[in-house]
Amino acid sequence: MQAENTSPAILCFGGLDPSGGAGLQADIEAVAACGGHALPIATCLTVQNTAQASKLLPTDAQLIALQAESILQDIAIDGCKIGVIPNSEITAVISDIVRQLPNIPVVLDPVFRASRGSTFCDQTTINTIKEKLLPFTKIATPNVAELEALTSDNESLLTRATELCMQGPDYVLLTDADNPAPKVCNQLFSAQGLIKEYYWPKLPHAYHGSGCTLSSALACFLSLKTEVSMAANLAQEYTWHSLQNARALGAGQMIPKRINTRAD
Amino acid sequence: MQAENTSPAILCFGGLDPSGGAGLQADIEAVAACGGHALPIATCLTVQNTAQASKLLPTDAQLIALQAESILQDIAIDGCKIGVIPNSEITAVISDIVRQLPNIPVVLDPVFRASRGSTFCDQTTINTIKEKLLPFTKIATPNVAELEALTSDNESLLTRATELCMQGPDYVLLTDADNPAPKVCNQLFSAQGLIKEYYWPKLPHAYHGSGCTLSSALACFLSLKTEVSMAANLAQEYTWHSLQNARALGAGQMIPKRINTRAD
Repeated sequence: MQAENTSPAILCFGGLDPSGGAGLQADIEAVAACGGHALPIATCLTVQNTAQASKLLPTDAQLIALQAESILQDIAIDGCKIGVIPNSEITAVISDIVRQLPNIPVVLDPVFRASRGSTFCDQTTINTIKEKLLPFTKIATPNVAELEALTSDNESLLTRATELCMQGPDYVLLTDADNPAPKVCNQLFSAQGLIKEYYWPKLPHAYHGSGCTLSSALACFLSLKTEVSMAANLAQEYTWHSLQNARALGAGQMIPKRINTRAD
Repeated sequence: MQAENTSPAILCFGGLDPSGGAGLQADIEAVAACGGHALPIATCLTVQNTAQASKLLPTDAQLIALQAESILQDIAIDGCKIGVIPNSEITAVISDIVRQLPNIPVVLDPVFRASRGSTFCDQTTINTIKEKLLPFTKIATPNVAELEALTSDNESLLTRATELCMQGPDYVLLTDADNPAPKVCNQLFSAQGLIKEYYWPKLPHAYHGSGCTLSSALACFLSLKTEVSMAANLAQEYTWHSLQNARALGAGQMIPKRINTRAD
Protein backbone atom coordinates (compact mmCIF):
# COMPACT_ATOMS: atom_id res chain seq x y z
CA MET A 1 0.00 0.00 0.00
CA GLN A 2 3.11 2.18 0.00
CA ALA A 3 4.11 4.51 -2.77
CA GLU A 4 7.41 2.79 -3.45
CA ASN A 5 9.13 2.03 -6.70
CA THR A 6 11.13 -0.75 -5.11
CA SER A 7 9.83 -4.27 -5.04
CA PRO A 8 11.44 -5.94 -2.04
CA ALA A 9 11.99 -9.69 -2.27
CA ILE A 10 10.61 -11.47 0.79
CA LEU A 11 11.71 -15.06 1.45
CA CYS A 12 8.66 -16.83 2.91
CA PHE A 13 8.68 -20.16 4.73
CA GLY A 14 5.26 -21.61 5.42
CA GLY A 15 2.73 -24.32 4.70
CA LEU A 16 0.77 -24.58 1.48
CA ASP A 17 -2.96 -24.46 2.24
CA PRO A 18 -5.25 -25.65 -0.61
CA SER A 19 -8.07 -23.44 0.70
CA GLY A 20 -5.87 -20.44 -0.08
CA GLY A 21 -6.69 -18.82 3.24
CA ALA A 22 -3.53 -19.25 5.25
CA GLY A 23 0.15 -20.08 4.80
CA LEU A 24 2.06 -19.31 1.63
CA GLN A 25 -0.95 -17.95 -0.27
CA ALA A 26 -1.52 -15.44 2.53
CA ASP A 27 2.18 -14.56 2.32
CA ILE A 28 2.17 -14.23 -1.47
CA GLU A 29 -0.94 -12.06 -1.55
CA ALA A 30 -0.05 -9.85 1.42
CA VAL A 31 3.49 -9.24 0.22
CA ALA A 32 2.29 -8.39 -3.30
CA ALA A 33 -0.43 -6.06 -2.03
CA CYS A 34 2.11 -4.24 0.14
CA GLY A 35 4.45 -3.72 -2.81
CA GLY A 36 6.86 -6.66 -2.56
CA HIS A 37 7.47 -10.02 -4.19
CA ALA A 38 7.25 -13.27 -2.22
CA LEU A 39 9.75 -16.09 -2.68
CA PRO A 40 7.78 -19.08 -1.32
CA ILE A 41 9.36 -22.18 0.20
CA ALA A 42 6.90 -24.78 1.47
CA THR A 43 7.75 -26.22 4.87
CA CYS A 44 4.83 -28.60 4.48
CA LEU A 45 1.87 -29.50 2.31
CA THR A 46 -1.46 -29.72 4.10
CA VAL A 47 -4.91 -31.22 3.68
CA GLN A 48 -7.34 -28.58 4.86
CA ASN A 49 -10.43 -26.59 3.99
CA THR A 50 -12.12 -23.64 5.68
CA ALA A 51 -13.59 -25.91 8.39
CA GLN A 52 -10.74 -28.22 9.38
CA ALA A 53 -7.06 -29.04 8.95
CA SER A 54 -6.69 -32.81 8.82
CA LYS A 55 -3.17 -33.61 7.58
CA LEU A 56 0.27 -32.05 7.35
CA LEU A 57 3.13 -33.50 5.30
CA PRO A 58 6.52 -31.95 6.13
CA THR A 59 8.79 -31.15 3.20
CA ASP A 60 12.13 -32.94 3.03
CA ALA A 61 14.52 -30.64 4.88
CA GLN A 62 17.30 -31.15 2.36
CA LEU A 63 15.00 -29.99 -0.45
CA ILE A 64 14.34 -26.78 1.49
CA ALA A 65 18.09 -26.23 1.78
CA LEU A 66 18.52 -26.73 -1.99
CA GLN A 67 15.64 -24.39 -2.79
CA ALA A 68 17.01 -21.62 -0.60
CA GLU A 69 20.53 -22.08 -1.93
CA SER A 70 19.28 -21.70 -5.51
CA ILE A 71 17.32 -18.54 -4.63
CA LEU A 72 20.11 -16.94 -2.59
CA GLN A 73 22.57 -17.46 -5.45
CA ASP A 74 20.32 -15.45 -7.74
CA ILE A 75 18.18 -12.95 -5.83
CA ALA A 76 19.05 -10.33 -3.19
CA ILE A 77 16.73 -10.95 -0.23
CA ASP A 78 15.19 -7.88 1.46
CA GLY A 79 13.17 -9.58 4.19
CA CYS A 80 12.12 -12.94 5.55
CA LYS A 81 8.90 -14.29 7.03
CA ILE A 82 8.82 -17.62 8.84
CA GLY A 83 5.48 -19.33 9.49
CA VAL A 84 4.63 -22.95 10.26
CA ILE A 85 7.64 -25.18 10.91
CA PRO A 86 6.63 -28.81 11.32
CA ASN A 87 9.80 -30.32 12.84
CA SER A 88 13.27 -29.66 14.29
CA GLU A 89 15.13 -30.71 11.16
CA ILE A 90 13.42 -28.03 9.09
CA THR A 91 13.92 -25.51 11.90
CA ALA A 92 17.67 -26.19 11.76
CA VAL A 93 17.77 -25.78 7.97
CA ILE A 94 15.89 -22.46 8.13
CA SER A 95 18.26 -21.33 10.88
CA ASP A 96 21.23 -22.07 8.61
CA ILE A 97 19.57 -20.01 5.88
CA VAL A 98 18.64 -16.93 7.91
CA ARG A 99 22.08 -16.74 9.55
CA GLN A 100 23.36 -16.05 6.01
CA LEU A 101 21.07 -13.00 5.87
CA PRO A 102 22.20 -10.85 8.81
CA ASN A 103 21.06 -7.46 7.55
CA ILE A 104 17.43 -8.10 6.71
CA PRO A 105 14.33 -8.10 8.92
CA VAL A 106 13.26 -11.61 9.89
CA VAL A 107 9.65 -11.88 11.08
CA LEU A 108 8.87 -15.07 13.00
CA ASP A 109 5.19 -15.92 13.24
CA PRO A 110 5.13 -18.84 15.65
CA VAL A 111 2.30 -21.18 14.62
CA PHE A 112 1.97 -24.25 16.80
CA ARG A 113 -1.63 -25.22 16.17
CA ALA A 114 -4.28 -24.31 13.61
CA SER A 115 -6.97 -21.93 14.78
CA ARG A 116 -9.26 -24.90 14.15
CA GLY A 117 -7.51 -27.11 16.68
CA SER A 118 -4.99 -29.43 15.06
CA THR A 119 -1.39 -29.32 16.25
CA PHE A 120 1.34 -28.36 13.80
CA CYS A 121 4.44 -29.17 15.82
CA ASP A 122 5.59 -30.78 19.08
CA GLN A 123 7.42 -29.42 22.13
CA THR A 124 10.81 -30.53 20.80
CA THR A 125 10.27 -28.40 17.72
CA ILE A 126 9.18 -25.45 19.84
CA ASN A 127 12.39 -25.81 21.84
CA THR A 128 14.45 -25.94 18.63
CA ILE A 129 12.69 -22.82 17.34
CA LYS A 130 13.59 -21.04 20.57
CA GLU A 131 17.20 -22.12 20.36
CA LYS A 132 17.87 -21.79 16.62
CA LEU A 133 15.47 -19.16 15.25
CA LEU A 134 14.78 -16.62 17.98
CA PRO A 135 18.41 -15.37 17.92
CA PHE A 136 17.97 -14.35 14.26
CA THR A 137 14.49 -12.87 14.64
CA LYS A 138 13.86 -9.14 14.33
CA ILE A 139 10.26 -9.35 15.46
CA ALA A 140 8.06 -12.22 16.62
CA THR A 141 4.27 -12.09 16.20
CA PRO A 142 2.75 -14.59 18.66
CA ASN A 143 -0.78 -14.66 19.95
CA VAL A 144 -1.24 -15.17 23.69
CA ALA A 145 -1.14 -18.98 23.54
CA GLU A 146 2.00 -18.92 21.39
CA LEU A 147 3.70 -16.43 23.69
CA GLU A 148 2.89 -18.73 26.60
CA ALA A 149 4.35 -21.73 24.77
CA LEU A 150 7.60 -19.83 24.15
CA THR A 151 8.15 -18.43 27.66
CA SER A 152 8.29 -19.42 31.34
CA ASP A 153 5.22 -19.61 33.55
CA ASN A 154 4.15 -16.10 34.47
CA GLU A 155 0.79 -14.39 34.75
CA SER A 156 2.12 -11.16 33.25
CA LEU A 157 2.12 -10.97 29.47
CA LEU A 158 4.51 -8.03 29.78
CA THR A 159 6.99 -10.23 31.65
CA ARG A 160 6.59 -12.99 29.10
CA ALA A 161 7.00 -10.62 26.14
CA THR A 162 10.17 -9.07 27.56
CA GLU A 163 11.48 -12.58 28.35
CA LEU A 164 10.88 -13.51 24.70
CA CYS A 165 12.82 -10.42 23.57
CA MET A 166 15.75 -11.49 25.79
CA GLN A 167 15.99 -14.65 23.65
CA GLY A 168 16.74 -12.72 20.46
CA PRO A 169 13.94 -10.71 18.88
CA ASP A 170 14.27 -6.92 19.07
CA TYR A 171 10.47 -6.75 19.23
CA VAL A 172 7.37 -8.79 19.99
CA LEU A 173 4.03 -7.89 18.43
CA LEU A 174 1.52 -9.70 20.64
CA THR A 175 -1.85 -10.23 18.95
CA ASP A 176 -5.02 -10.80 20.92
CA ALA A 177 -7.94 -11.19 18.54
CA ASP A 178 -9.31 -14.13 20.56
CA ASN A 179 -9.96 -11.94 23.59
CA PRO A 180 -13.75 -11.42 24.05
CA ALA A 181 -13.29 -7.65 24.64
CA PRO A 182 -15.17 -5.39 22.18
CA LYS A 183 -11.90 -4.06 20.78
CA VAL A 184 -8.83 -6.05 19.77
CA CYS A 185 -5.73 -4.77 21.53
CA ASN A 186 -2.40 -5.76 19.99
CA GLN A 187 0.78 -4.75 21.82
CA LEU A 188 4.30 -4.01 20.66
CA PHE A 189 7.09 -4.81 23.14
CA SER A 190 10.84 -4.61 23.27
CA ALA A 191 13.13 -6.00 25.98
CA GLN A 192 12.56 -2.68 27.78
CA GLY A 193 8.80 -3.17 27.99
CA LEU A 194 5.64 -2.00 26.25
CA ILE A 195 6.20 0.35 23.29
CA LYS A 196 2.73 0.79 21.87
CA GLU A 197 -0.84 -0.50 22.00
CA TYR A 198 -2.99 -0.75 18.88
CA TYR A 199 -6.80 -0.92 19.12
CA TRP A 200 -8.98 -2.32 16.34
CA PRO A 201 -12.75 -2.77 16.16
CA LYS A 202 -13.55 -6.44 16.68
CA LEU A 203 -14.80 -8.10 13.50
CA PRO A 204 -17.73 -10.50 13.71
CA HIS A 205 -16.42 -13.69 12.10
CA ALA A 206 -13.60 -16.19 12.31
CA TYR A 207 -10.93 -15.70 9.66
CA HIS A 208 -8.48 -18.10 8.07
CA GLY A 209 -4.91 -16.86 7.80
CA SER A 210 -5.14 -13.54 9.64
CA GLY A 211 -1.85 -14.11 11.49
CA CYS A 212 -0.03 -15.13 8.30
CA THR A 213 -1.36 -12.04 6.55
CA LEU A 214 -0.24 -9.74 9.37
CA SER A 215 3.28 -11.12 9.67
CA SER A 216 3.93 -11.14 5.92
CA ALA A 217 2.70 -7.58 5.52
CA LEU A 218 4.93 -6.64 8.44
CA ALA A 219 7.97 -8.27 6.83
CA CYS A 220 7.26 -6.32 3.65
CA PHE A 221 6.88 -2.94 5.39
CA LEU A 222 10.01 -3.54 7.48
CA SER A 223 11.98 -4.42 4.35
CA LEU A 224 10.90 -1.03 2.97
CA LYS A 225 12.74 0.50 5.96
CA THR A 226 9.54 1.60 7.66
CA GLU A 227 10.11 2.28 11.38
CA VAL A 228 8.89 -0.68 13.43
CA SER A 229 5.91 0.79 15.31
CA MET A 230 4.68 2.38 12.07
CA ALA A 231 5.29 -0.85 10.10
CA ALA A 232 3.30 -2.74 12.74
CA ASN A 233 0.48 -0.22 12.40
CA LEU A 234 0.43 -0.40 8.59
CA ALA A 235 0.49 -4.21 8.66
CA GLN A 236 -2.41 -4.34 11.13
CA GLU A 237 -4.39 -1.80 9.12
CA TYR A 238 -3.85 -3.80 5.94
CA THR A 239 -4.82 -7.03 7.69
CA TRP A 240 -7.90 -5.51 9.31
CA HIS A 241 -9.20 -4.33 5.93
CA SER A 242 -8.51 -7.71 4.33
CA LEU A 243 -10.57 -9.35 7.12
CA GLN A 244 -13.33 -6.76 6.88
CA ASN A 245 -13.70 -7.65 3.18
CA ALA A 246 -13.36 -11.40 3.76
CA ARG A 247 -15.55 -13.84 1.86
CA ALA A 248 -17.32 -17.02 2.98
CA LEU A 249 -16.14 -19.53 0.38
CA GLY A 250 -16.75 -22.59 2.54
CA ALA A 251 -18.67 -23.58 5.66
CA GLY A 252 -15.87 -22.64 8.09
CA GLN A 253 -13.65 -19.63 8.54
CA MET A 254 -13.91 -16.73 6.12
CA ILE A 255 -11.11 -16.08 3.61
CA PRO A 256 -9.47 -12.63 3.83
CA LYS A 257 -9.59 -10.51 0.68
CA ARG A 258 -5.97 -9.45 0.43
CA ILE A 259 -5.85 -8.18 -3.14
CA ASN A 260 -7.77 -5.24 -4.52
CA THR A 261 -8.88 -5.61 -8.09
CA ARG A 262 -9.09 -2.58 -10.33
CA ALA A 263 -12.82 -2.31 -9.71
CA ASP A 264 -12.56 -2.27 -5.88
CA MET B 1 -9.77 -6.51 -13.62
CA GLN B 2 -13.53 -6.96 -13.98
CA ALA B 3 -16.10 -5.04 -12.00
CA GLU B 4 -17.62 -8.12 -10.39
CA ASN B 5 -18.86 -8.64 -6.87
CA THR B 6 -18.45 -12.36 -7.17
CA SER B 7 -15.22 -14.01 -6.17
CA PRO B 8 -14.99 -17.21 -8.19
CA ALA B 9 -13.02 -20.06 -6.64
CA ILE B 10 -10.45 -21.44 -9.07
CA LEU B 11 -8.90 -24.83 -8.32
CA CYS B 12 -5.27 -24.61 -9.48
CA PHE B 13 -2.92 -27.53 -10.04
CA GLY B 14 0.70 -26.56 -10.63
CA GLY B 15 4.25 -26.56 -9.38
CA LEU B 16 5.48 -24.40 -6.53
CA ASP B 17 8.33 -22.18 -7.76
CA PRO B 18 10.46 -20.57 -5.01
CA SER B 19 11.34 -17.67 -7.32
CA GLY B 20 7.66 -16.76 -7.34
CA GLY B 21 7.66 -16.23 -11.08
CA ALA B 22 5.80 -19.23 -12.41
CA GLY B 23 3.51 -22.00 -11.23
CA LEU B 24 1.15 -21.63 -8.30
CA GLN B 25 2.32 -18.12 -7.38
CA ALA B 26 1.49 -16.98 -10.90
CA ASP B 27 -1.90 -18.67 -10.53
CA ILE B 28 -2.58 -17.15 -7.11
CA GLU B 29 -1.63 -13.64 -8.17
CA ALA B 30 -3.34 -13.70 -11.57
CA VAL B 31 -6.57 -15.14 -10.20
CA ALA B 32 -6.65 -12.60 -7.36
CA ALA B 33 -5.93 -9.69 -9.69
CA CYS B 34 -8.74 -10.79 -12.00
CA GLY B 35 -11.21 -10.93 -9.13
CA GLY B 36 -11.13 -14.58 -8.05
CA HIS B 37 -9.65 -16.75 -5.32
CA ALA B 38 -7.14 -19.51 -6.08
CA LEU B 39 -7.27 -22.90 -4.38
CA PRO B 40 -3.70 -24.15 -4.89
CA ILE B 41 -2.71 -27.82 -5.05
CA ALA B 42 0.98 -28.46 -5.67
CA THR B 43 1.70 -31.14 -8.26
CA CYS B 44 5.39 -30.77 -7.45
CA LEU B 45 7.92 -28.77 -5.50
CA THR B 46 10.81 -27.38 -7.53
CA VAL B 47 14.33 -26.07 -7.08
CA GLN B 48 14.62 -23.07 -9.38
CA ASN B 49 15.57 -19.44 -9.63
CA THR B 50 15.19 -16.90 -12.43
CA ALA B 51 18.10 -18.43 -14.36
CA GLN B 52 17.54 -22.19 -14.14
CA ALA B 53 15.23 -24.96 -12.99
CA SER B 54 17.36 -27.76 -11.55
CA LYS B 55 15.05 -30.14 -9.68
CA LEU B 56 11.41 -31.21 -9.54
CA LEU B 57 9.92 -33.34 -6.78
CA PRO B 58 6.46 -34.73 -7.65
CA THR B 59 3.85 -34.64 -4.90
CA ASP B 60 2.46 -37.96 -3.70
CA ALA B 61 -0.60 -38.53 -5.91
CA GLN B 62 -2.69 -39.81 -3.01
CA LEU B 63 -2.06 -36.59 -1.09
CA ILE B 64 -3.36 -34.61 -4.07
CA ALA B 65 -6.51 -36.73 -4.04
CA LEU B 66 -7.00 -36.08 -0.30
CA GLN B 67 -6.42 -32.35 -0.72
CA ALA B 68 -8.95 -32.07 -3.52
CA GLU B 69 -11.50 -34.18 -1.66
CA SER B 70 -11.24 -31.91 1.37
CA ILE B 71 -11.68 -28.78 -0.76
CA LEU B 72 -14.55 -30.16 -2.85
CA GLN B 73 -16.45 -31.14 0.32
CA ASP B 74 -16.33 -27.52 1.49
CA ILE B 75 -16.07 -25.07 -1.41
CA ALA B 76 -18.07 -24.72 -4.66
CA ILE B 77 -15.54 -24.66 -7.50
CA ASP B 78 -16.12 -22.14 -10.30
CA GLY B 79 -13.16 -22.92 -12.53
CA CYS B 80 -10.03 -25.03 -12.80
CA LYS B 81 -6.55 -24.39 -14.15
CA ILE B 82 -4.11 -27.25 -14.72
CA GLY B 83 -0.42 -26.50 -15.18
CA VAL B 84 2.66 -28.71 -14.77
CA ILE B 85 1.88 -32.40 -14.25
CA PRO B 86 5.03 -34.38 -13.53
CA ASN B 87 3.79 -37.97 -14.04
CA SER B 88 0.94 -40.23 -15.16
CA GLU B 89 -0.21 -41.09 -11.65
CA ILE B 90 -0.88 -37.45 -10.84
CA THR B 91 -2.53 -37.00 -14.25
CA ALA B 92 -4.95 -39.81 -13.41
CA VAL B 93 -5.76 -38.32 -10.00
CA ILE B 94 -6.46 -34.89 -11.53
CA SER B 95 -8.62 -36.55 -14.16
CA ASP B 96 -10.68 -38.20 -11.42
CA ILE B 97 -11.09 -34.79 -9.78
CA VAL B 98 -12.10 -32.77 -12.84
CA ARG B 99 -14.62 -35.40 -13.98
CA GLN B 100 -16.49 -34.55 -10.74
CA LEU B 101 -16.73 -30.94 -11.95
CA PRO B 102 -18.56 -31.16 -15.28
CA ASN B 103 -20.05 -27.68 -15.37
CA ILE B 104 -17.01 -25.51 -14.84
CA PRO B 105 -14.39 -24.26 -17.30
CA VAL B 106 -11.19 -26.32 -17.16
CA VAL B 107 -8.14 -24.59 -18.64
CA LEU B 108 -5.26 -26.92 -19.45
CA ASP B 109 -1.89 -25.25 -19.87
CA PRO B 110 0.33 -28.02 -21.13
CA VAL B 111 3.84 -27.48 -19.74
CA PHE B 112 6.33 -30.12 -20.76
CA ARG B 113 9.60 -28.27 -20.34
CA ALA B 114 10.68 -25.08 -18.58
CA SER B 115 11.33 -22.11 -20.83
CA ARG B 116 14.89 -22.48 -19.53
CA GLY B 117 15.32 -25.96 -20.93
CA SER B 118 14.70 -28.62 -18.30
CA THR B 119 12.06 -31.27 -18.98
CA PHE B 120 9.06 -31.52 -16.67
CA CYS B 121 7.50 -34.76 -17.89
CA ASP B 122 8.08 -37.70 -20.24
CA GLN B 123 6.21 -38.97 -23.31
CA THR B 124 4.18 -41.46 -21.26
CA THR B 125 2.84 -38.60 -19.16
CA ILE B 126 2.03 -36.60 -22.29
CA ASN B 127 0.09 -39.58 -23.62
CA THR B 128 -1.79 -39.89 -20.31
CA ILE B 129 -2.63 -36.19 -20.38
CA LYS B 130 -4.04 -36.64 -23.90
CA GLU B 131 -6.10 -39.62 -22.86
CA LYS B 132 -7.30 -38.56 -19.41
CA LEU B 133 -7.35 -34.76 -19.33
CA LEU B 134 -8.10 -33.48 -22.83
CA PRO B 135 -11.66 -34.93 -22.73
CA PHE B 136 -12.45 -32.70 -19.71
CA THR B 137 -10.71 -29.58 -20.99
CA LYS B 138 -12.68 -26.50 -22.06
CA ILE B 139 -9.66 -24.72 -23.51
CA ALA B 140 -6.00 -25.68 -23.89
CA THR B 141 -3.29 -23.02 -24.04
CA PRO B 142 -0.22 -24.58 -25.68
CA ASN B 143 2.67 -22.81 -27.31
CA VAL B 144 3.82 -24.13 -30.68
CA ALA B 145 6.17 -26.77 -29.24
CA GLU B 146 3.49 -28.02 -26.86
CA LEU B 147 0.90 -28.17 -29.63
CA GLU B 148 3.37 -30.22 -31.67
CA ALA B 149 3.95 -32.61 -28.75
CA LEU B 150 0.19 -33.17 -28.41
CA THR B 151 -0.66 -33.76 -32.08
CA SER B 152 0.33 -35.78 -35.16
CA ASP B 153 3.06 -34.68 -37.55
CA ASN B 154 1.72 -31.90 -39.74
CA GLU B 155 3.20 -28.65 -41.00
CA SER B 156 -0.07 -26.78 -40.53
CA LEU B 157 -0.68 -25.37 -37.06
CA LEU B 158 -4.33 -24.98 -38.05
CA THR B 159 -4.56 -28.72 -38.72
CA ARG B 160 -2.80 -29.50 -35.46
CA ALA B 161 -5.03 -27.13 -33.46
CA THR B 162 -8.24 -28.58 -34.89
CA GLU B 163 -6.87 -32.09 -34.27
CA LEU B 164 -6.29 -31.12 -30.64
CA CYS B 165 -9.87 -29.85 -30.39
CA MET B 166 -11.13 -33.21 -31.70
CA GLN B 167 -9.56 -34.82 -28.63
CA GLY B 168 -11.76 -32.90 -26.19
CA PRO B 169 -11.13 -29.17 -25.78
CA ASP B 170 -13.79 -26.85 -27.18
CA TYR B 171 -11.01 -24.35 -27.88
CA VAL B 172 -7.26 -24.01 -28.29
CA LEU B 173 -5.51 -20.73 -27.58
CA LEU B 174 -2.16 -21.10 -29.33
CA THR B 175 0.51 -18.73 -28.03
CA ASP B 176 3.51 -17.77 -30.08
CA ALA B 177 5.68 -15.36 -28.10
CA ASP B 178 8.85 -17.20 -29.17
CA ASN B 179 8.32 -16.28 -32.83
CA PRO B 180 10.90 -13.64 -33.91
CA ALA B 181 8.21 -11.55 -35.66
CA PRO B 182 7.88 -7.94 -34.37
CA LYS B 183 4.36 -8.67 -33.09
CA VAL B 184 3.21 -11.66 -31.10
CA CYS B 185 0.27 -13.36 -32.77
CA ASN B 186 -1.80 -15.67 -30.57
CA GLN B 187 -4.62 -17.61 -32.21
CA LEU B 188 -7.92 -18.99 -30.93
CA PHE B 189 -9.20 -22.16 -32.61
CA SER B 190 -12.16 -24.48 -32.32
CA ALA B 191 -12.63 -27.83 -34.08
CA GLN B 192 -14.10 -25.79 -36.95
CA GLY B 193 -10.93 -23.77 -37.47
CA LEU B 194 -9.50 -20.36 -36.64
CA ILE B 195 -11.81 -18.10 -34.60
CA LYS B 196 -9.65 -15.08 -33.89
CA GLU B 197 -6.10 -13.71 -34.03
CA TYR B 198 -4.72 -11.46 -31.29
CA TYR B 199 -1.71 -9.23 -31.95
CA TRP B 200 0.49 -7.85 -29.17
CA PRO B 201 3.61 -5.68 -29.35
CA LYS B 202 6.66 -7.86 -28.70
CA LEU B 203 8.25 -7.13 -25.32
CA PRO B 204 12.03 -6.96 -25.08
CA HIS B 205 12.87 -9.44 -22.33
CA ALA B 206 12.38 -13.05 -21.31
CA TYR B 207 9.70 -13.53 -18.66
CA HIS B 208 9.18 -16.21 -16.06
CA GLY B 209 5.65 -17.56 -15.78
CA SER B 210 3.93 -15.74 -18.64
CA GLY B 211 2.05 -18.88 -19.74
CA CYS B 212 0.91 -19.67 -16.19
CA THR B 213 -0.28 -16.09 -15.79
CA LEU B 214 -2.26 -16.19 -19.03
CA SER B 215 -3.99 -19.49 -18.41
CA SER B 216 -4.94 -18.66 -14.81
CA ALA B 217 -6.35 -15.28 -15.80
CA LEU B 218 -8.27 -17.05 -18.56
CA ALA B 219 -9.73 -19.59 -16.11
CA CYS B 220 -10.85 -16.72 -13.91
CA PHE B 221 -12.50 -14.74 -16.72
CA LEU B 222 -14.22 -17.86 -18.05
CA SER B 223 -15.54 -18.67 -14.57
CA LEU B 224 -17.09 -15.18 -14.58
CA LYS B 225 -19.08 -16.33 -17.66
CA THR B 226 -17.15 -14.09 -20.03
CA GLU B 227 -17.52 -15.24 -23.65
CA VAL B 228 -14.45 -17.20 -24.71
CA SER B 229 -12.89 -14.90 -27.35
CA MET B 230 -13.40 -11.93 -25.02
CA ALA B 231 -12.04 -13.87 -22.03
CA ALA B 232 -8.99 -14.80 -24.08
CA ASN B 233 -8.51 -11.13 -24.99
CA LEU B 234 -8.85 -9.94 -21.39
CA ALA B 235 -6.44 -12.62 -20.16
CA GLN B 236 -3.85 -11.69 -22.80
CA GLU B 237 -4.25 -7.98 -22.04
CA TYR B 238 -3.78 -8.63 -18.31
CA THR B 239 -0.74 -10.81 -18.98
CA TRP B 240 0.82 -8.36 -21.41
CA HIS B 241 0.62 -5.56 -18.81
CA SER B 242 2.06 -7.79 -16.09
CA LEU B 243 5.02 -8.53 -18.39
CA GLN B 244 5.41 -4.91 -19.42
CA ASN B 245 5.79 -4.02 -15.72
CA ALA B 246 8.02 -7.01 -14.94
CA ARG B 247 10.99 -6.66 -12.62
CA ALA B 248 14.52 -8.08 -12.81
CA LEU B 249 14.90 -9.69 -9.39
CA GLY B 250 17.60 -12.13 -10.45
CA ALA B 251 20.08 -12.64 -13.26
CA GLY B 252 17.69 -14.61 -15.48
CA GLN B 253 14.13 -14.11 -16.63
CA MET B 254 12.15 -11.13 -15.39
CA ILE B 255 9.31 -11.63 -12.92
CA PRO B 256 5.87 -10.39 -14.08
CA LYS B 257 4.20 -7.78 -11.88
CA ARG B 258 0.76 -9.29 -11.55
CA ILE B 259 -0.60 -7.28 -8.63
CA ASN B 260 -1.22 -3.56 -8.60
CA THR B 261 -0.60 -1.91 -5.26
CA ARG B 262 -2.66 1.09 -4.22
CA ALA B 263 0.07 3.45 -5.39
CA ASP B 264 0.33 2.00 -8.91
